[in-house]
Amino acid sequence: MVRENEIRQGERAVAPGELETHPGLAGRLIDGGHCLTLRVYYEDTDFSGIVYHANYLKFMERGRSDYIRLLGVAQGELFAKAREEAPGFHFVVRSMQLDFRKPAQIDDVLQVVTLSKEVSGASITLLQQVMRAGEVLVSATVRVAFVSEGRAKRIPDALRQATAADAQKLEAAAAEGAAR
Amino acid sequence: MVRENEIRQGERAVAPGELETHPGLAGRLIDGGHCLTLRVYYEDTDFSGIVYHANYLKFMERGRSDYIRLLGVAQGELFAKAREEAPGFHFVVRSMQLDFRKPAQIDDVLQVVTLSKEVSGASITLLQQVMRAGEVLVSATVRVAFVSEGRAKRIPDALRQATAADAQKLEAAAAEGAAR
Amino acid sequence: MVRENEIRQGERAVAPGELETHPGLAGRLIDGGHCLTLRVYYEDTDFSGIVYHANYLKFMERGRSDYIRLLGVAQGELFAKAREEAPGFHFVVRSMQLDFRKPAQIDDVLQVVTLSKEVSGASITLLQQVMRAGEVLVSATVRVAFVSEGRAKRIPDALRQATAADAQKLEAAAAEGAAR
Amino acid sequence: MVRENEIRQGERAVAPGELETHPGLAGRLIDGGHCLTLRVYYEDTDFSGIVYHANYLKFMERGRSDYIRLLGVAQGELFAKAREEAPGFHFVVRSMQLDFRKPAQIDDVLQVVTLSKEVSGASITLLQQVMRAGEVLVSATVRVAFVSEGRAKRIPDALRQATAADAQKLEAAAAEGAAR
Repeated sequence: MVRENEIRQGERAVAPGELETHPGLAGRLIDGGHCLTLRVYYEDTDFSGIVYHANYLKFMERGRSDYIRLLGVAQGELFAKAREEAPGFHFVVRSMQLDFRKPAQIDDVLQVVTLSKEVSGASITLLQQVMRAGEVLVSATVRVAFVSEGRAKRIPDALRQATAADAQKLEAAAAEGAAR
Repeated sequence: MVRENEIRQGERAVAPGELETHPGLAGRLIDGGHCLTLRVYYEDTDFSGIVYHANYLKFMERGRSDYIRLLGVAQGELFAKAREEAPGFHFVVRSMQLDFRKPAQIDDVLQVVTLSKEVSGASITLLQQVMRAGEVLVSATVRVAFVSEGRAKRIPDALRQATAADAQKLEAAAAEGAAR
Repeated sequence: MVRENEIRQGERAVAPGELETHPGLAGRLIDGGHCLTLRVYYEDTDFSGIVYHANYLKFMERGRSDYIRLLGVAQGELFAKAREEAPGFHFVVRSMQLDFRKPAQIDDVLQVVTLSKEVSGASITLLQQVMRAGEVLVSATVRVAFVSEGRAKRIPDALRQATAADAQKLEAAAAEGAAR
Repeated sequence: MVRENEIRQGERAVAPGELETHPGLAGRLIDGGHCLTLRVYYEDTDFSGIVYHANYLKFMERGRSDYIRLLGVAQGELFAKAREEAPGFHFVVRSMQLDFRKPAQIDDVLQVVTLSKEVSGASITLLQQVMRAGEVLVSATVRVAFVSEGRAKRIPDALRQATAADAQKLEAAAAEGAAR
């Protein structure tokens, strides 16, 4: 049972002065998306000596959360309006395609890269990669939908525009790469 | 954000016929408390090859949940009344004293024993032990309080009487043991 | 760091008498695969009120572990030989395709169905479904490879034959369904 | 089964240049101990809307890991020697006393403070607090022992001296506070 006053997602995703005090805590926006640096702790590993496969999904969810968080900071008022329209909004994962290429290990410093690929009215498709020192360990295509008060909702304009702009950058970069 | 129709804790802790179809899924009531049998999977271990210490707390919480679940089944109408009085009730842990004696390992079959020790108006103190083949691996004293709609509440009569009866059995057994 | 005497996976997946004492703890073999019944506890949910998406992967891994466990019991000596050839063997997930259709909630009793779909020399493709009362909540195609002493290995004969036999049953059932 | 070349704990807890590139990723040493800042994500919460109680133990373990990591960086050669003497060393928790005072919630930024309290030949007692904006949410007394190659070992000199020095600072601060 959730107390109303405990739900602050959507109302207060970033406290005043937080990003200044803790640079890097929420990762950073990059061209076309977001990058989060994190470390592998005991809790993330299993007895086979490497990161337990399901825990990469936690890393990716942290990346998505912080991507939205920083888009919100960058957009300011537009996001505030989105939050009014859709109180307590959050994302739910609809589908995932995962490739586990190489294992991460205890003490590793990892980068979680999140890129917007495709944005529709009701869902966003993201490319996500868990990397170590420039090498891709796990890659994923993730489709998320937007939920507010327990129901699928149209993605608020401010968020749709921000992620769509990132998706265009990704497409442009891919086209440029292909043209060479 | 929680949809109202998703909160079924308190309203439907055990589905009709469930205990008959899956005996042992919720463990079983024993003299003075409850015993749950479970197995250690990959997810529970860490790279050091043994169960990650925080995961014993998950095992104990499963034991507490199933203890309350089966008391509810045994009490029938009384619990139904308690649920009406306190919609969406659940327990929160206030304090724990934990001793980690021996490690559990992948594939181990464990017993989680939960015994009522002391019952007051607002909290219950439980003794919990995680055992393997009769040997105690982890032991704990756990104080839980009762919460409904986000606030500490008096423990419903039906639940208080059931756990207090178990606490008396434990005390009687201890006194008998001391008298010998 | 793992003590040699702590690694019992592969040497002792099921203790003598264990399955008799705790029927259903490891689920049961079904036509073409395996079915495990489990319950949703606090630990499995998140603040949005439903099961956290990454935790379905834990449920599926429990299903795969118990499927292999029970195949091992059914095969007896053949598996003992496989364990000698490949000490400390376990599976690693290479890829997953996941569809999250409906959410599971606290207290739900779920079935994890694991079916062999395709077996090659080095990997097994499984179909896995997390169900509630006959309804599919999450479905997945999972490719696992076989690892012993930190290296990809050819799947031992006993295990390959057992899963391939299950895969043939699945194919035959599908063909029969299509012919109708 | 753990590959020898996968065990890097003890050999490479911090990569060259890592702390410069990611300031704050491993927290920072403070007078008498260590402080780590982290954020609450979906994975940390449960359906009751707050952080699941067992997950505070994960936060505390991250704090302990990073405390040892930074002591190692500060000590340099002494720690390198300790690692030679005790390959693959890590800590195991022997006992914990936990008080859960107030709940943390999704999106919260938390501080995990770890202070050395008492150091003996074979174990270290730490005070740990999970805080939010200067307020203590969870406090713990944690006794950890030192393990290398699966056995309890005497704590290496370099580590014992570093934590004992922190314990003396804590005691001195407490005495000063009492004298006022």
